[in-house]
Amino acid sequence: MGDSTLETLATPALVLDRPTLERNLTTMATAVGRHGVRLRPHLKTAKSVEVARRAIAGQAGGIAVSTLAEADYFAQAGFTDQLYAVGITPQKLARAAALIRRGVNLVLTTDDVGAARAIAALATAEGLAIRTVVEVDCGEHRAGVAPDSEQLLAVAAALGPCCIGVMTHGGHSYGCQTPAEAAVVAESERVAAVTAAERLRSAGVAVSMISVGSTPTARFANRLDGVTEARPGVYMFQDLFQIQLAGDPLDSIAVTVLASVTSVRPAEGVVLVDAGGIALSKDRSTASAPTDYGYGLLLDLDGQPSFGRALVERANQEHGVIRLPNPADCARLPVGSLVRIATNHICMTAAAFDRYHVVDGTRTITAVWPRVNGW
Amino acid sequence: MGDSTLETLATPALVLDRPTLERNLTTMATAVGRHGVRLRPHLKTAKSVEVARRAIAGQAGGIAVSTLAEADYFAQAGFTDQLYAVGITPQKLARAAALIRRGVNLVLTTDDVGAARAIAALATAEGLAIRTVVEVDCGEHRAGVAPDSEQLLAVAAALGPCCIGVMTHGGHSYGCQTPAEAAVVAESERVAAVTAAERLRSAGVAVSMISVGSTPTARFANRLDGVTEARPGVYMFQDLFQIQLAGDPLDSIAVTVLASVTSVRPAEGVVLVDAGGIALSKDRSTASAPTDYGYGLLLDLDGQPSFGRALVERANQEHGVIRLPNPADCARLPVGSLVRIATNHICMTAAAFDRYHVVDGTRTITAVWPRVNGW
Repeated sequence: MGDSTLETLATPALVLDRPTLERNLTTMATAVGRHGVRLRPHLKTAKSVEVARRAIAGQAGGIAVSTLAEADYFAQAGFTDQLYAVGITPQKLARAAALIRRGVNLVLTTDDVGAARAIAALATAEGLAIRTVVEVDCGEHRAGVAPDSEQLLAVAAALGPCCIGVMTHGGHSYGCQTPAEAAVVAESERVAAVTAAERLRSAGVAVSMISVGSTPTARFANRLDGVTEARPGVYMFQDLFQIQLAGDPLDSIAVTVLASVTSVRPAEGVVLVDAGGIALSKDRSTASAPTDYGYGLLLDLDGQPSFGRALVERANQEHGVIRLPNPADCARLPVGSLVRIATNHICMTAAAFDRYHVVDGTRTITAVWPRVNGW
Repeated sequence: MGDSTLETLATPALVLDRPTLERNLTTMATAVGRHGVRLRPHLKTAKSVEVARRAIAGQAGGIAVSTLAEADYFAQAGFTDQLYAVGITPQKLARAAALIRRGVNLVLTTDDVGAARAIAALATAEGLAIRTVVEVDCGEHRAGVAPDSEQLLAVAAALGPCCIGVMTHGGHSYGCQTPAEAAVVAESERVAAVTAAERLRSAGVAVSMISVGSTPTARFANRLDGVTEARPGVYMFQDLFQIQLAGDPLDSIAVTVLASVTSVRPAEGVVLVDAGGIALSKDRSTASAPTDYGYGLLLDLDGQPSFGRALVERANQEHGVIRLPNPADCARLPVGSLVRIATNHICMTAAAFDRYHVVDGTRTITAVWPRVNGW
C-alpha cells in the first residue's frame, strides 16, 4: 500500500485521516473517563473493525451497534460485548439469539411490553440469557418510556430476569448550539436514566447497565454519577454539524469525501464534482446550525479550506454543484482536479461507501479499512 | 422462492411490485414512442440487470448509466450500447477505454475542452473509437455548455472525430408541478439539443446522437422532432415527488421500503419503524411539491394507504418516526408489525440496498433482483 496515493483512487471515495481519528478518540476517552464511567463506542458511524479496535483501546471493550448486520460483523471479529441500541422486534429475536448462542453478550433494547414478553418467552424456551435494557425517553421524544411511568415497570416485569437495566439517548442534544446547552441535555439523560434505574431497583431488578449518550452529551456532561456507561458514536469522525456545536476546528473532521471536478463554469465561479446526493448524502443538518454549509464544504486535496467558504449548494444523484466565493479559483480547479469535501453528517455520508482509504496527514494511503453496510 | 413472503424478510428491505413496474415501463415507452424517437432507459435509478432487460424490451437496446460501476455491471450482463451521462474526467478514461476495448459502445460525456483533448489523445494513441457527446445546458444550469456558445464548438473541435453529438438534461423539470410545465422544459431541452446539433453539423461534425431527457420531460414533451433519443430513469419506479408532478395515483409507485414497527406511543399517535435516514434517505424533495410527505408515507403491508396521511416526520439513522392522523391506529401497529413506506426520491432510497424483493401484487416474493451500488 505504501505507494498508493489519493491521486490513484477512483472517485468518489472516503478518506480517513488516522491522526485526526486518534485525536478525536482521545478527546472523548478523556471526557468520559473523568466521570469514572465506561465508554462504549457506538459503531453506527464507523461500522469498521479497524476503527472499533482503536475506539476500545484502553476501554472496557464493549461497543454499541445500530443493526444486526453490524452485530454479526463485529461478532465475527471477536467483539463479544455489544449493545444493540435500537428497539428489537420479535422477528429479529432468532438472529439475535443465534449471536448470543455463539458467545456474544448481545444486550437488546426495547420499550414495549409485547416485545419484552417475546424476549422472556424465548429466553425461557431456549434456556438462554437474553440480557435486555429498557429504553427510557429523556426528552428526545423518539423511542422510550418515561422514567416515571408505569410503562417502565410493566416492560421490566415482562422481561423478568432478562432485564438488566436501562438506556437512554439524548438525541435532542442535536438541537444544541453550544457545549453548555449540551451539558443541560446530558443532565436530562443522566437524571432520566438514574431515576428509571432506581425505580427498577426498588421493584427488585438487578440493574447492572445504565447507559446514556450521544456525542454532544457524552463529551460535555458536567456529571455522570449513577450512570455506568456512555455510548457516543460520531465523535470518532466529527462533521460540519458536530464541530459547530463543540466549537472544534475544521481539522478535527477525520473523514472526508474525495471527489473529482467534472465541469467548470468560470463566469459563475461554479465547479461540479462527481460526489452528489448519494456520495455526500442529502442530510441538511447544518441548516439549523449557526453556519449552514449546504451539502458540504470544499477542501483541497490536502484537506485544507483553501477556497474559502465554497459550499456544495446542490447535490443531485451524481453531481455536486459548488459555488466558489472567488470565481477566479475556477482556474485552480480544472476538470479532473481532486478535492475533498467535508459533510454535514458523516454517519449518513459514510453509509454510501464500503471502505475507508486511510491516510496519516499526507496523500499516501497507508491502509484500506472495510465497512459493513445494510441490515 | 415461491414459498417466501414479505413476512419472512429482515427489515428494512426494498420491495418491487412487478406489475406496477411493467405499467410504468409501458407508459413511458408509449409516451416517447409517439414521437418516433428511441427510448434509452437511464439505469441510475434501478441499477439492476433484471429491470434493465424489461426496460429495453421493444426498444433499440441502449441504456444510460451514471457511474462506471454501472457501466461495468451492465457490460458484464451483455449491454453493449451505453451512454455514461456524467462528465468524464481524464483519470476515468482508462477504465472507460477498457470497456470499449471489450466491445462496449460506451459513449462518454463532457462539456470541457481539457477533458475533450484527453479523450481525443487517448483515442489516437490507442487507435480506439471513443464516441463522445458534448453536454449542453438547456436551462438547468448544472453541467453543459450553452447551445449558442463558442465553447460548444471548442469542445467539439477538441474531440475531433470522437464527437458524435450532444446530450442535455432538463433537470429543472423537477421544479415543475404539472405536466404542462414539464412540457415547457421539454421544449427547452429539444431546442437546446437541436440548436447545438445543427451548429455542430455546420461545423462539419457527423452528428448521430441528440439525447435529451428526464422523466417529466420525456413523458410530457409535446414534440421531440430533431432529437434521436430520450433517456428518463425514475419513471420505472416512480416516487412521491414524481406522482405529484405527473398527477399519477399512489399505486403507480413500484418500489417501497418494507419496515417493522419498533416502538409505539399510543397517546401521541406515533409509531417508530426500523427504516430511518439511511433506508429512506434524507431526501426532502416533496418539501417543494404541492404535498409535502416528510420523509415518506406509511402504507400497510399490502401497499395500501390505510392509515391516511401518516408521514415519516423524522428520519434519524435507523429510526423513522411516523405520526398517525388517527392515534387509535396505533392499536393496528403493535411492535413487530410490518409496513411499507413510499419515499420522496426512489433513486436516493434504493441506493441504500443491494437487492429488490419482487412481488406480483401479493405478499409472495417471486424473485430477488440484485443492484449495483458504489462507484
